[in-house]
Amino acid sequence: MSLPSFDPTLLQARAAEIVATTRELATLGWTPATGGNFSMRMDGRHDAITVSGRDKGRLTEADVMVVDWSGQAVGSTHRPSAETLLHTQLYQRFPEIGCVLHTHSLNQTLASRLYAGAGHLRFEDYELIKAFRGQSTHATRMDVPVLPNNQHMPILAAQVDVLLDAGPLCGYLIEGHGLYAWGADMTEARRHLDAFEFLLSCELEMRKLIR
Amino acid sequence: MSLPSFDPTLLQARAAEIVATTRELATLGWTPATGGNFSMRMDGRHDAITVSGRDKGRLTEADVMVVDWSGQAVGSTHRPSAETLLHTQLYQRFPEIGCVLHTHSLNQTLASRLYAGAGHLRFEDYELIKAFRGQSTHATRMDVPVLPNNQHMPILAAQVDVLLDAGPLCGYLIEGHGLYAWGADMTEARRHLDAFEFLLSCELEMRKLIR
Amino acid sequence: MSLPSFDPTLLQARAAEIVATTRELATLGWTPATGGNFSMRMDGRHDAITVSGRDKGRLTEADVMVVDWSGQAVGSTHRPSAETLLHTQLYQRFPEIGCVLHTHSLNQTLASRLYAGAGHLRFEDYELIKAFRGQSTHATRMDVPVLPNNQHMPILAAQVDVLLDAGPLCGYLIEGHGLYAWGADMTEARRHLDAFEFLLSCELEMRKLIR
Amino acid sequence: MSLPSFDPTLLQARAAEIVATTRELATLGWTPATGGNFSMRMDGRHDAITVSGRDKGRLTEADVMVVDWSGQAVGSTHRPSAETLLHTQLYQRFPEIGCVLHTHSLNQTLASRLYAGAGHLRFEDYELIKAFRGQSTHATRMDVPVLPNNQHMPILAAQVDVLLDAGPLCGYLIEGHGLYAWGADMTEARRHLDAFEFLLSCELEMRKLIR
Repeated sequence: MSLPSFDPTLLQARAAEIVATTRELATLGWTPATGGNFSMRMDGRHDAITVSGRDKGRLTEADVMVVDWSGQAVGSTHRPSAETLLHTQLYQRFPEIGCVLHTHSLNQTLASRLYAGAGHLRFEDYELIKAFRGQSTHATRMDVPVLPNNQHMPILAAQVDVLLDAGPLCGYLIEGHGLYAWGADMTEARRHLDAFEFLLSCELEMRKLIR
Repeated sequence: MSLPSFDPTLLQARAAEIVATTRELATLGWTPATGGNFSMRMDGRHDAITVSGRDKGRLTEADVMVVDWSGQAVGSTHRPSAETLLHTQLYQRFPEIGCVLHTHSLNQTLASRLYAGAGHLRFEDYELIKAFRGQSTHATRMDVPVLPNNQHMPILAAQVDVLLDAGPLCGYLIEGHGLYAWGADMTEARRHLDAFEFLLSCELEMRKLIR
Repeated sequence: MSLPSFDPTLLQARAAEIVATTRELATLGWTPATGGNFSMRMDGRHDAITVSGRDKGRLTEADVMVVDWSGQAVGSTHRPSAETLLHTQLYQRFPEIGCVLHTHSLNQTLASRLYAGAGHLRFEDYELIKAFRGQSTHATRMDVPVLPNNQHMPILAAQVDVLLDAGPLCGYLIEGHGLYAWGADMTEARRHLDAFEFLLSCELEMRKLIR
Repeated sequence: MSLPSFDPTLLQARAAEIVATTRELATLGWTPATGGNFSMRMDGRHDAITVSGRDKGRLTEADVMVVDWSGQAVGSTHRPSAETLLHTQLYQRFPEIGCVLHTHSLNQTLASRLYAGAGHLRFEDYELIKAFRGQSTHATRMDVPVLPNNQHMPILAAQVDVLLDAGPLCGYLIEGHGLYAWGADMTEARRHLDAFEFLLSCELEMRKLIR
């Protein structure tokens, strides 16, 4: 009889935190039609992640499972989110990352389509840039990469790897799909997510206002 | 003395489910001024549907009644929704349909007017297309028909029949009016409705963003 | 010692209904910065109306008072809303009117400014036109008058009188200010208000979508 | 052993009022990613202000501290908001100011960027202008200054001083950043804030509607 390879008490704590945040994001309309997936690091080789296809506005702790860094379910027969690899990639590569949030808001989807051709969009001269880790002034530029969408996760993950090689990031967009944002813990990941959403909204609205 | 031709316990269950969802949709503003109507299949010849003209934000189980597939009230003196025929048509024709949701959101109304001339609008390259039954990739096209509005239901129903003959559908728009969406059960119908609303919003906003 | 000239029990009932609706409208953002005022008929010479300048999101029954049809406070030392005359005018002229709702939503303000030059805006071919008393088809036109704003109520009231002479109305806009809507009771007045708000939003959004 | 230089009971009362309003503003989305800061006058040399960097949607009374008018913490080891000086400047200069609210809504950010070149934007012919202290008619003009953003508070404060020398104000915008609004007490400051937000929204939407 084998023992679980992760701490079950920690899973409970992570699941509670994931459920609380995910329900808030569902209320904001950022997870339409079961879209989005959410995870937190457990330890040096596991993270807790939402089960595939669940209604995010009705998520319970039973809808959070453990995967290892090859993206395989551990101690569960549930199917993890199809995009699990994009989460484990970040945990494996950066020990300082503790939480990854992936949402599909309207503004994220619109921005991802509009800037897919350019490959990125740029935030510049916004006070809210200071909400991102390592930023201390509005008088700077911050580029958000936009990747083409792909149903084959290893290809998407490889393209993300190239981006991560190029320098520090707090998130990226996937075309017609949504946003990945992360941080050291849930609080920081959520602050980054909120700042991305706000600044994407600003950029989109400015385009409507400039005649 | 005649017995009811349907299972009254099932009606209670269906009514509870319809009330819960309808109140959520009212909160989203998708049923303005008593607009919209909502139904679930009961058995091989009845469905449960909202009574005409009730405030959807204050709906109770007493506001749900049974109709047969000619659209006639069964075991009730209430008047069913004027558009009952558009619901029964779907249940009668497709045994696999268990729930039909009709809403009047702002975006549904706008899209129905804007694309009425073209007769349809097209979703293409959105990750959320995968929320529709039978879709497994974003890399596809999905057309949503737009019918002209008509106060005479048999004419509208006949036009819908022509559309249904042409291939599988999860929903259609009526010009200046709103959206019909359906599924195997409430969960699937609601997922389809949410995906339509989201993708209609995307298409409308993209038109504002493209200068 | 004089007796009150109105039924105090009826005032309690009216106040409860006004408070419930007003708080809902405040939550929708239609009464910014204490804006808006709300009334219900009491009898053949009194109506219950909100006291001037109160925060509509925190309204209590003590914030509803009685006025007679000259707009004077009855049995209260509170100051009635500055626009009381626009309410009493309707009750005095039309015995079938039981409730008047005046809101300042963003869309009402925008539409009132945009269509002030034309003097009216037109709803045409919307299913939701059927939400208005006396309308049974979408295939019709309905004009909403837009009056110039004025701080002197007798002038505004006289201009409204001219409009009312011209035929049946369910509401009008005042430029840069908001909407008056009414009905036989709170339910109908609210249904009219919701339908106006929805259709005004449609007209404004269509202008943004038509390039 | 030194006694506190302010009334601790008063701090409790101020903190309760600040927490209640701040949570409402967070729900409206006007304090994204810990943005915004909020204060109330305590006495002739202190005000109560939110601690730096706290999530405004989860604010508690422990997140409110006292500062003196040089912006130094009094009786606390917390760090006050970086923009404390912009609050104390107003209390020190105008004895009649009792509350200062600083938010970062989307519309405030957009308007601040769009009108930064002009240096101000103008409200004209809106009924809601009457929500501002000292205004009694819509038939007037009201200018809202827009300052360039700066991370060095003494420079921003000096620029605000020049504006305040020029005449009475209820608020100003900072480019790419947000709005400062104030009043005699929380009720008036909040009414001013709501009126600014509404009228900024009107001006932005009108630009989208005018083709």
